[in-house]
Amino acid sequence: MQLYSFFNSSTSYRVRIALALKGVDYECVPVNIRTGANRDAQYVAHINPSAVVPALVDGDFQLGQSLAIIDYLDAVYPEPRLIPADPLERARVLEFANLISCDIHPVNNLRVLRYLQDVLKLTTEQKDAWYRHWVAEGMAAVERLLARSNAGPWCFGAQPTLADCCLVPQIANAHRMGCNLSDYPRALAIYRHALEHPAFDAAQPQRQPDYVS
Amino acid sequence: MQLYSFFNSSTSYRVRIALALKGVDYECVPVNIRTGANRDAQYVAHINPSAVVPALVDGDFQLGQSLAIIDYLDAVYPEPRLIPADPLERARVLEFANLISCDIHPVNNLRVLRYLQDVLKLTTEQKDAWYRHWVAEGMAAVERLLARSNAGPWCFGAQPTLADCCLVPQIANAHRMGCNLSDYPRALAIYRHALEHPAFDAAQPQRQPDYVS
Repeated sequence: MQLYSFFNSSTSYRVRIALALKGVDYECVPVNIRTGANRDAQYVAHINPSAVVPALVDGDFQLGQSLAIIDYLDAVYPEPRLIPADPLERARVLEFANLISCDIHPVNNLRVLRYLQDVLKLTTEQKDAWYRHWVAEGMAAVERLLARSNAGPWCFGAQPTLADCCLVPQIANAHRMGCNLSDYPRALAIYRHALEHPAFDAAQPQRQPDYVS
Repeated sequence: MQLYSFFNSSTSYRVRIALALKGVDYECVPVNIRTGANRDAQYVAHINPSAVVPALVDGDFQLGQSLAIIDYLDAVYPEPRLIPADPLERARVLEFANLISCDIHPVNNLRVLRYLQDVLKLTTEQKDAWYRHWVAEGMAAVERLLARSNAGPWCFGAQPTLADCCLVPQIANAHRMGCNLSDYPRALAIYRHALEHPAFDAAQPQRQPDYVS
């Protein structure tokens, strides 16, 4: 099994956490999205037609989209289960994961920030304000969802789930961009707890073979 | 069961299609996102802490995020199933749905377009170019995914799935914004086929109680 990944991609980071939690051995194949390797014709033709990272290759099956990959991993490596089977628990985990994957991350990813800079010629201040705006709006919603049901130490109880696989990379990104997250104590407590877990630690950007500081 | 929905919200539209395909009776509760009703304190406190549409209320269970809602509906109203059970088929449907829900729709939704206009003071031409850029990039990926596996008449075979619930509102939005979609013939053929289906027709914006032209 290969994971096409970029060390600083938070969607790749989600899948790395899931693979580590499940203890799956895999080969990490770096794809440098800063230089546009994700748009390479061979990559798009043979690995991921969506031209993004991550992509999982399992034998002759290639799969893109981090949440689809984690759902697939839950089917082929069911222990530990990351998306609960119970309909109500499952709904809460998916709601939370989708809040991050649909409402927060996409507007602040590399290709969007590049468009703001290269096409719209925004100043660094404008670009930073954009980033902080969507983090603040999204993290406030994250904190409200956690306030409704979070008892810790993970997003939804005693074991990590897909929700934690999404939260940790999102907070890591926000930290990297210098966002003040002090208004989100529940989310921060989960983040700190997660980084003490070996699987979450192993999935961090600085632990990846393609890491550059 | 109530669906908190806005007629022109494509995420609400996805859930309306799923409910119609399953033949579920529900009450449509309009939330006018143009006037910010989704940020109303009562709505955020009691219906959807994420402060967006759609939200499903099933007895005392409230749930946000369109893909989480459709997954939940598949559990409580399993016929017809919209997310396949087979791991490989399921992975393809989720990959496709997430391409639309994570990579295309979020960067072009109302709150982002308003930020471009109200905060960044973009011209209409710049805003339209932004919209078309992400539609073109995303729809090219949609078409490549369909080229890999699509045999019609739906995205993944003989029956509609979550993939079609996501594709149809995305294309409707792109049409509304005047995008040229002629480079995506597979997607357009599915869209035209879908609109002849009574469930997809009933879910259209102009069939909703809160529709205004």
